[in-house]
Amino acid sequence: MKIVLAPDSFKGSLSSSEVTQVMERAIKDVDHSYTVVSKPMADGGEGTIEAMLTSREGKKVNVQCTGPLGEPIDSSYILFNSNEAVIELAEIAGLTLVPTQKRNPDHTTTYGLGEVILDAMDRGTKSIMIGLGGSATNDGGLGMLIALGMKAWDKDGRPLSGYGSNLHHVQSISFEHMDKRLKDVDIKVACDVTSPLCGDQGASVVFGPQKGATDQQVKQYDQSLHHYANIIENNLGQSYQNIPGAGTAGGLGFALLTIGGQLNSGAKLIGEAIHLEKEIQEADLVITGEGQSDEQTLYGKAPGFVASLANKHRVPVVLLSGSLSSDQKSLNNVFTSCFSIVNRPLTLEESMNEVEALLYEQTKQMIKLVGAFSKR
Amino acid sequence: MKIVLAPDSFKGSLSSSEVTQVMERAIKDVDHSYTVVSKPMADGGEGTIEAMLTSREGKKVNVQCTGPLGEPIDSSYILFNSNEAVIELAEIAGLTLVPTQKRNPDHTTTYGLGEVILDAMDRGTKSIMIGLGGSATNDGGLGMLIALGMKAWDKDGRPLSGYGSNLHHVQSISFEHMDKRLKDVDIKVACDVTSPLCGDQGASVVFGPQKGATDQQVKQYDQSLHHYANIIENNLGQSYQNIPGAGTAGGLGFALLTIGGQLNSGAKLIGEAIHLEKEIQEADLVITGEGQSDEQTLYGKAPGFVASLANKHRVPVVLLSGSLSSDQKSLNNVFTSCFSIVNRPLTLEESMNEVEALLYEQTKQMIKLVGAFSKR
Repeated sequence: MKIVLAPDSFKGSLSSSEVTQVMERAIKDVDHSYTVVSKPMADGGEGTIEAMLTSREGKKVNVQCTGPLGEPIDSSYILFNSNEAVIELAEIAGLTLVPTQKRNPDHTTTYGLGEVILDAMDRGTKSIMIGLGGSATNDGGLGMLIALGMKAWDKDGRPLSGYGSNLHHVQSISFEHMDKRLKDVDIKVACDVTSPLCGDQGASVVFGPQKGATDQQVKQYDQSLHHYANIIENNLGQSYQNIPGAGTAGGLGFALLTIGGQLNSGAKLIGEAIHLEKEIQEADLVITGEGQSDEQTLYGKAPGFVASLANKHRVPVVLLSGSLSSDQKSLNNVFTSCFSIVNRPLTLEESMNEVEALLYEQTKQMIKLVGAFSKR
Repeated sequence: MKIVLAPDSFKGSLSSSEVTQVMERAIKDVDHSYTVVSKPMADGGEGTIEAMLTSREGKKVNVQCTGPLGEPIDSSYILFNSNEAVIELAEIAGLTLVPTQKRNPDHTTTYGLGEVILDAMDRGTKSIMIGLGGSATNDGGLGMLIALGMKAWDKDGRPLSGYGSNLHHVQSISFEHMDKRLKDVDIKVACDVTSPLCGDQGASVVFGPQKGATDQQVKQYDQSLHHYANIIENNLGQSYQNIPGAGTAGGLGFALLTIGGQLNSGAKLIGEAIHLEKEIQEADLVITGEGQSDEQTLYGKAPGFVASLANKHRVPVVLLSGSLSSDQKSLNNVFTSCFSIVNRPLTLEESMNEVEALLYEQTKQMIKLVGAFSKR
């Protein structure tokens, strides 16, 4: 029996590679002869690099860059095959890098991401995957674009730097001095491919408040992003702001589109990068999982993507979740079975404290049942 | 695929036959072609008759008898094949029939059980199964024996009636006028076969308090039961008081032993009566369940007994429980798999309120998984 483990993390409890370790231990304790292939998943947010390193050997590159508040920080990214870079935005301009009381989109920037992209290109990288998610910024990628060579000026012709507050003043831009190497680099962007740049579903309205934006700022940023995008689109002769995902990471999705980035579901990109489909194709059982599951699980989240691959190849796929929604109908359509790891009445806190033991035990019960009915 | 359902009740939520109904609905919703055999179980306590009536056609016999407090009550028992009676003590002298403020072993009696046995014998019954459990009495079966013809006197030769308080005064007894038909009746007693009549594990110490006995009464009853048993044993020339189960139902186990009753695990007796083993032998999967599971599940409880039959015939057996103990090791040795019906962090109250939906959904998940790996 070949079992592929492709869970997401149990947020707040276990990383996806920790989840696979617990599952693997449980499976081996049931039947040591089972072949287990661990392919921890991620959605492009925090934990993406850790997950990918389980499946592929990569080299960590340390880099000093500009942090979300403009201060220099030590960050890192990963090189696979010496020319494929994987960058986590959360490590460069992540919300967790900004203390709560300092969260204000006026003072944050994606400049560091531009620097890291330059560093990767300096090393000869031809392919860059960038995991968006968890950003502290609402600068529309102004910072990143400036780091990569774009110039921006206000109405009086004064050059602007890449902080959120400058977004409101952009009147003209020039791509003349953009780094020429960008044209030869394949940029894949892992994100939730849903929000457009502006409007009620856009970057500022939906994600601004959690980055510290006041109601007033939310309105202001929504207008400024629109104005800024129009200027860039006029310059490039192409429209990007309504492409789903343009609004990801405070409008960084938009900026990445303008430099040729392809936006895609994080789970799909990472699944491709770790060759998940090939393993699933040959599997007898696929196990995925996450901390909490509901209808959203099926839209761009790792377990939904894993299930789609398993269903394509007619391999049974089981979801082990910290918590299943009370209405499981839509999950039932996609997963062979869904089990919560909760094995008795417990509070959320209790179940998070016991997550490892609960996950181990539930994996075991499920594998024992499969073993009893499998003829292989 | 043939699936046998043999759960106990989910105490406080669903009777065992309700549990099988929910499970059957879930299974049929997964695959209508599956054969489902419902064999709801019980342990001899409340719900025994209801469970048995699902598997076998029986006739309800209404009977007026003496209740636990000596008042006449309307009770009933069941006749199978017109000559096998099944009697639930809980329906005659049950704790639930006595309001909390009136609970006092001095004033309760098992006299009604004797009357119901007589009624059954009047109808030609040759086999009587009595489910003990949930009794309000601590009379050592004095009441029942008197109803069946035993005489008891105090030290002054005054005849005694069958209330708990009279137990302390028994000085001599006679079996001369016992109903002669008892010799030809097969009496099976369904009980927890653990407690002896007296001592720290005996009827009074372990179960007295929940029947309203004070500390003082517990001590007094423990001594009196011993004295009373010695008198009876001297008369019969045989010892019964240390047989495990003699202490069941306030010493009623002892009294039933003296009239030839065979004590047995309720689950085993009921399983035999409903021909459970034959069905399990031919099954592809057995599902059992109960409200709460721990190591005790394996000692005389229905799910443990069901698992022993399934293991004997090498049929996979799954336990669906409202709550699994945090240490599942001993359960894992006996069940193919154990799943809680709880599918997310919930309080006990919430999970009991939702028990039907949760049980339905968990049954479904489990059956879908089995279906994916079953070749039949």
